[in-house]
Amino acid sequence: MRRRSFIGAMASAALLHSVTPALAQGDPLPSWNDGPNKQSIVDFVIRATTPGSRDWVPVPGRIATFDNDGTLWTEQPMYVQTVFAADRVRATVARHPEWRTTEPFRSILADDRAQLALMGEKGLLEIIAATHSGRTTEEFRRTVLDWLAAARHPRFKRPYADLVYQPMLELLAYLRANQFKTFIVSGGSIDFMRAWTERTYGIPPEQVVGSSGVTKYVMQAPGQPVLMKEAKVEFVDDFAGKAEGINRFIGRRPYFAFGNSDGDQQMLEWTAAGDGLRCMGLVHHTDAVREYAYDRDSPIGRLDKAWDEAVRRNWMVVDMKSDWKVIYPFELR
Amino acid sequence: MRRRSFIGAMASAALLHSVTPALAQGDPLPSWNDGPNKQSIVDFVIRATTPGSRDWVPVPGRIATFDNDGTLWTEQPMYVQTVFAADRVRATVARHPEWRTTEPFRSILADDRAQLALMGEKGLLEIIAATHSGRTTEEFRRTVLDWLAAARHPRFKRPYADLVYQPMLELLAYLRANQFKTFIVSGGSIDFMRAWTERTYGIPPEQVVGSSGVTKYVMQAPGQPVLMKEAKVEFVDDFAGKAEGINRFIGRRPYFAFGNSDGDQQMLEWTAAGDGLRCMGLVHHTDAVREYAYDRDSPIGRLDKAWDEAVRRNWMVVDMKSDWKVIYPFELR
Repeated sequence: MRRRSFIGAMASAALLHSVTPALAQGDPLPSWNDGPNKQSIVDFVIRATTPGSRDWVPVPGRIATFDNDGTLWTEQPMYVQTVFAADRVRATVARHPEWRTTEPFRSILADDRAQLALMGEKGLLEIIAATHSGRTTEEFRRTVLDWLAAARHPRFKRPYADLVYQPMLELLAYLRANQFKTFIVSGGSIDFMRAWTERTYGIPPEQVVGSSGVTKYVMQAPGQPVLMKEAKVEFVDDFAGKAEGINRFIGRRPYFAFGNSDGDQQMLEWTAAGDGLRCMGLVHHTDAVREYAYDRDSPIGRLDKAWDEAVRRNWMVVDMKSDWKVIYPFELR
Repeated sequence: MRRRSFIGAMASAALLHSVTPALAQGDPLPSWNDGPNKQSIVDFVIRATTPGSRDWVPVPGRIATFDNDGTLWTEQPMYVQTVFAADRVRATVARHPEWRTTEPFRSILADDRAQLALMGEKGLLEIIAATHSGRTTEEFRRTVLDWLAAARHPRFKRPYADLVYQPMLELLAYLRANQFKTFIVSGGSIDFMRAWTERTYGIPPEQVVGSSGVTKYVMQAPGQPVLMKEAKVEFVDDFAGKAEGINRFIGRRPYFAFGNSDGDQQMLEWTAAGDGLRCMGLVHHTDAVREYAYDRDSPIGRLDKAWDEAVRRNWMVVDMKSDWKVIYPFELR
């Protein structure tokens, strides 16, 4: 939370002591430990949604955006999409013998994980575009769902969709209960995410913003059009692209934005630059025992410049180890 | 409506005779004359929303898409955006003296309306991109709103936002009351439309799909980012682009789609190609007295191939003159 003056803090404390619908129903964030971060979130939601509050936000403007990899689910030891892309290369190399000697396909086929880990999301998108050209959007969707059902995380031995963060699921639900529309704004492939975000996060396809490849309308037979995926990257929704993607897909500025890496810095800056009260946060991965610990030197999910800016501007930095009672939903069972 | 078999028609008649929430509240489409088109719409909505109906659509899948120019508001004698673009050229030519001798700017400055009318939406977008490069998204939005407040339609002498179709406003409201999410999918500029669609149609910016120019994130000063519009067309949301735009922005297939011209044909084809019951419609402009009459030979809003396909496939073709009791909301006052 930013722009919190002494007077603002007092006003907010007063609001918190009145019984509001948001709190009357019990703790909306049970997997969050009490502390300044949880308090900041609740404080923001109450101030944004209490009629008469100076910071009240009309319902249609209640837009909240979340990064996906490392913010809503685990992105280590490799982006889930990297694993998917590598599996797709292996599955389709017979039709593309040239990949055996061409980078980055060669590294993938050699299972060179160090090399794969270093590959940015743009490189990934190129591989996904290449491995899926000539297929339709619906074939791609089925491929993603089949893969997700079968694949297991190398450390947790569970489906990747199990490795979503319980505290973030609660945060999404809390915002939605307060009439925020929740969006994903991710560097990952929009088509990859849309296959499963509704089921996993309650976020429908039309509220997923991501990187995309060119898709062409093709009439296969009379009355039988398809959308065919081409081997060409169209839009990279990362770094400055996240602010641009928010403008393109959503068309208005979020009041609430959460990320975990330098790729999210511009989304948070764009959110912060709006009028009135806004809430910006970063997940800091500090828990090597329950999840992973990484920040400035990590090739995946590097948190360096965005962290410095968050500290300087008093944005929330969630310490996974101390702020979260529970990491994954399966811990609750 | 398509795929209406005899048995389907019987089942539908049975459904219509049971009292459902959609009809119990009175006529949801009072500005539509009774007839097969109104009946098709009501029939579709009842079948799609009645629990137990074979054609029931789960709420999250209830996506309805509408073209804008000529479908939701008047597009004659020139696309509203053409008038806007021409006014912007005149307003900014002092900074661009080269426009006086370069097409299409020369024609615009000479007020060559025949030439302007012939300009497609892509040409328009190029002009809009050119006249707005170096301005921010927020400056552009203010320019649009100021212009709309001042401009008057040459025949009706009213603000353009008065020239929306009352029957289509009722249709939007009826679909929303039945938990359809209504989207605009238009060849027009997404930024132009988003400035006013929420107020005029109740369609929020994040449910507007349109053509776009490149927009770049620029940090003007520390903590002061802007999104700057560049002089480059990025995406043309027309013809096949409408199906591609639906995929890109919405990520799932509509169950209901309405247009009025050949530029909408692929949106309707894409909608029709989905499983189960879908509803596709075209507005046919047949009323030269109350609005305009045009179809196959019109340079603006040409309705030719899409009309043939609609007739062949039994999609709705709304006859404005006989289907609509009222054209504009101001007729009701």
